[in-house]
Amino acid sequence: MVTINDNFQKLPGSYLFSEIAKRVAAYKESNPSAQIIRMGIGDVTLPLCDAVIKAMHKAVDEMANQSTFRGYGPEQGYKFLIDTIIKNDFEPRGVSLESDEVFISDGAKSDTGNIGDILGLGNIVAVTDPVYPVYVDTNVMAGRAGDLLADGRWSKIVYLPCTAENGFVPELPKEKVDVIYLCFPNNPTGTTLTKSQLAEWVKYALANDALILFDAAYEAFIQEADVPHSIYEIEGAKKCAIEFRSFSKTAGFTGTRCGLSIIPKSVLATNEKGEKVQLNKLWNRRQCTKFNGTAYVIQRAAEAVYSEEGKRQVKDMIDYYITNAKIIRNGLEAAGYTVFGGKNSPYVWAKTPDGMDSWSFFDYLLKEKNIVATPGVGFGVSGEGYIRFSALGDKDATIEAMKRLG
Amino acid sequence: MVTINDNFQKLPGSYLFSEIAKRVAAYKESNPSAQIIRMGIGDVTLPLCDAVIKAMHKAVDEMANQSTFRGYGPEQGYKFLIDTIIKNDFEPRGVSLESDEVFISDGAKSDTGNIGDILGLGNIVAVTDPVYPVYVDTNVMAGRAGDLLADGRWSKIVYLPCTAENGFVPELPKEKVDVIYLCFPNNPTGTTLTKSQLAEWVKYALANDALILFDAAYEAFIQEADVPHSIYEIEGAKKCAIEFRSFSKTAGFTGTRCGLSIIPKSVLATNEKGEKVQLNKLWNRRQCTKFNGTAYVIQRAAEAVYSEEGKRQVKDMIDYYITNAKIIRNGLEAAGYTVFGGKNSPYVWAKTPDGMDSWSFFDYLLKEKNIVATPGVGFGVSGEGYIRFSALGDKDATIEAMKRLG
Repeated sequence: MVTINDNFQKLPGSYLFSEIAKRVAAYKESNPSAQIIRMGIGDVTLPLCDAVIKAMHKAVDEMANQSTFRGYGPEQGYKFLIDTIIKNDFEPRGVSLESDEVFISDGAKSDTGNIGDILGLGNIVAVTDPVYPVYVDTNVMAGRAGDLLADGRWSKIVYLPCTAENGFVPELPKEKVDVIYLCFPNNPTGTTLTKSQLAEWVKYALANDALILFDAAYEAFIQEADVPHSIYEIEGAKKCAIEFRSFSKTAGFTGTRCGLSIIPKSVLATNEKGEKVQLNKLWNRRQCTKFNGTAYVIQRAAEAVYSEEGKRQVKDMIDYYITNAKIIRNGLEAAGYTVFGGKNSPYVWAKTPDGMDSWSFFDYLLKEKNIVATPGVGFGVSGEGYIRFSALGDKDATIEAMKRLG
Repeated sequence: MVTINDNFQKLPGSYLFSEIAKRVAAYKESNPSAQIIRMGIGDVTLPLCDAVIKAMHKAVDEMANQSTFRGYGPEQGYKFLIDTIIKNDFEPRGVSLESDEVFISDGAKSDTGNIGDILGLGNIVAVTDPVYPVYVDTNVMAGRAGDLLADGRWSKIVYLPCTAENGFVPELPKEKVDVIYLCFPNNPTGTTLTKSQLAEWVKYALANDALILFDAAYEAFIQEADVPHSIYEIEGAKKCAIEFRSFSKTAGFTGTRCGLSIIPKSVLATNEKGEKVQLNKLWNRRQCTKFNGTAYVIQRAAEAVYSEEGKRQVKDMIDYYITNAKIIRNGLEAAGYTVFGGKNSPYVWAKTPDGMDSWSFFDYLLKEKNIVATPGVGFGVSGEGYIRFSALGDKDATIEAMKRLG
């Protein structure tokens, strides 16, 4: 008799963005003429830049000719892309990586979701709160989360609150934890850690033999000098951290799908005999067995992000969104709201007014202002009383939204 | 202290195709002038067809304009592709499917590898022997395989030998099994099951509450009328089978990456309370949490396979490879070998001569004939004494290879 993985049934049925979509659809149904401005889901809106489009056309043409056609590529990704990434994103920051420490994938969601495959089920997992739901849900599926408690937390997960009270800087855990998910610039709060703040975490991980899973999906938005783009800018991180990156927000690849994981060979974990094992080797085996590489055309697209033309165009794209974020910050502040994030991130995190809960404020914005934002509580208990605005939309619509709030 | 998933360390270090690559590289090193013909790995060699190339260029152009740009798509795939697949691959064979029973992915390797996420760890897994290594290795990683025995088998896996003695038709298991991987047309043997032979398996699954994981990656090569293209052509299969499909071999997408899983809502499995649960719902949750959809451009490429032009061009491609398979069959038979498969498949499975073991014959072919094939034993114990030839190469090279063997 075939049985299911029972952990799946522990997950609450409704997913944040489906609930939002449902409420918006219901409102639209009864108010068909409403001009709704969507600042909810973190999807990009600008088209792919010219350099990327050109590279894709060229790669498609290569696929049309037997002499340049590409079949199965390396499961780890093509060296042309890996080396370009190392040269542009890491070497200038003083981070040296070998080609076989970088794994190209179809996106950071897949990698942050699948990384648990190589980790023991007994590891104690810590997440910042609020948090990107994938980190928690994938651990629920694997059986590391324990049971869902009445307050919405999971019994075995260690939560590290990030709120206005601590300036969105998580405190080091009091209990021992083994795996720590950190995403900075943060989704959803849009806030950052300075180098010295991140160094505290590296120090903790080294002292406690813990692993940091560092999600750098938003690093391209960093404007301030003291905010690390990569955790490997911190000394010692190459011994305790895996880093995830994505072209989704960097270059508008949400519908094009390319990301990467960096697993330095010096990152070790313990096996049942107490021996130290390279996580790099395990991930390589995982990818070779369960993944067949990212499409050639897509890898050429990603490579083009690093051409001179591509760099300029991608920077313009980021500037556009960062300008939106500034418009949102200023608009919300002028309207009397307390805001966070949005300086090195496309997300602005705002306190709901008058102690309103997140979903009530969501409904108010939808019905009174025809603006869709994301309720902070959807990202975790400590997100209650906050709401997230995305700056990844159209500039005119962003300005119009702030007018409505003014 | 972070720990690893210890199951990974049970896997033998070397993977079949890396071992082949190593031996070929070593031979090339000492014989740089050797004209090696590669008939080993099952990778395609013909370029993408015109219809697909045109569709990709068009989709790339859409990504260049804000009004037609696509960000995140549905995790399950775009309806335009799903409905096209149902209309072309299933309805004409009398199989009705709903759109939400089809999940588009980046390839059948990912799906056959990840499907275990939703299944209980206590399920007893059966595989045909020889077998595509991914089915076994992913169950080792999950902890369902038990321990590696001296003969190369895993203690908890039930093996269903497919050899010349039983005409490559696996016998129903004597012990009770819960999950059965079937791949027909088969990789590696190239042999098939008739409808009535496959019906025996559906009957077994229904009677034993077992789940069939049916890999139809090679269905496009079927030439004979009595060979089912989909397991859902068999009555009752929609209650007990998940089917995996791929554009890799059908349309030369090995480097383009698109596949799909079909999970009818009537396929149920049991939870710890003894209740029946839809696997469709669990897979949907898995994909929504760990996957962000297949690239838009790639989905448009796959859709073009079903245009009138695309169908013609893809058929020409398949005919080319099937002709190669015939050349290999005839060539090997003329040279005195006993051959199987290759009629509805790009793989020809040959008995090694004089009871030679697979790797010895591999070495003989490499060194004496400069031909690379795949040792049958690399696919499992029952593959010993066989070797696999791929017909996915160049026609002239295929003819030349058979001359060398003649």
